Amino acid sequence: MSFRPPIKFCNQCGAAVKHAVPNDGDTRIRAICPACGVVHYQNPLNVVGCIPVLDDGRILLCKRNIEPRWGKWTLPAGFMELDETTSQGSARETDEEAGADIEMGRLFSVISVPRVGQVHLFYCARLRSETLNPGHETIEARFFEAKDIPWDELAFRTVSITLQRYLEDRASGTVQVHNIDLV
Amino acid sequence: MSFRPPIKFCNQCGAAVKHAVPNDGDTRIRAICPACGVVHYQNPLNVVGCIPVLDDGRILLCKRNIEPRWGKWTLPAGFMELDETTSQGSARETDEEAGADIEMGRLFSVISVPRVGQVHLFYCARLRSETLNPGHETIEARFFEAKDIPWDELAFRTVSITLQRYLEDRASGTVQVHNIDLV
Repeated sequence: MSFRPPIKFCNQCGAAVKHAVPNDGDTRIRAICPACGVVHYQNPLNVVGCIPVLDDGRILLCKRNIEPRWGKWTLPAGFMELDETTSQGSARETDEEAGADIEMGRLFSVISVPRVGQVHLFYCARLRSETLNPGHETIEARFFEAKDIPWDELAFRTVSITLQRYLEDRASGTVQVHNIDLV
Repeated sequence: MSFRPPIKFCNQCGAAVKHAVPNDGDTRIRAICPACGVVHYQNPLNVVGCIPVLDDGRILLCKRNIEPRWGKWTLPAGFMELDETTSQGSARETDEEAGADIEMGRLFSVISVPRVGQVHLFYCARLRSETLNPGHETIEARFFEAKDIPWDELAFRTVSITLQRYLEDRASGTVQVHNIDLV
């Protein structure tokens, strides 16, 4: 979840770039290649994940085996890739990190985190079984009852906010999509 | 709205990259710098926009003065930038393309377009006045009654789907967030 370093060289021709506002009506400083003319943009990244829940209400969390936040608990989530939709990416990450058998549900939260240039999207998901097969990015995957969620040991604010809102909505029977700005 | 060209050179040190699966548990081919070791990822981009509506129900559309789809009609929208939230980006694009005075509303649609590696997010927005000041990316900005929307002259499928769903929901009084995959 780190920010991207500034662009120093053109990824199309290898020349050193200059940083200036392009002469095309743009208003922002971009990395521009003086050799081949390509303008290089840097834009926010999407992180896609889900809230995997057993029919008895317990929620699946994964203990991170990677930085940042090694050893902290998270919902399965990761960077969205090319050639997939947001829900497909969410399913892929859940498979990679937990090996869980899920039925993907509806979009639950869309959270902007401009400080790190990210948008986090979480889906509801139903766990079809308790069988798990965590990947190399996960130390341990475990089911938590709502009262046992390790709030002080969660990896990211987007995870804690999504879990809070999920439990509130579940208690009140509310169905909504949460659009939140973490500024 | 075009796809990104493959990475040929490292943007950190300028060396020619190789394309291979990194030796860190990854499963995808990435551009890897053999000189400095940096792995370069390419990920989907977000396009953020809104449905600007006057209190009398007319909808603001902009005629594009840029490629792709020059001369076609669109909702105000464009690539999300760093240092902004999805709704802030939507407001910025609406200002840049139409100079419209809006009150940003709720998230309306989240549409994955994996063919071009994009996610489009549209918000509802209330136009506070009919005053417009279109920017250089817009030939003309105009208010349309629902019956006059130029369906055959819209620039993008995400725009036509968002407008269709908006008009359906308005007719039925439904309030929902539409999560759609255009695959």
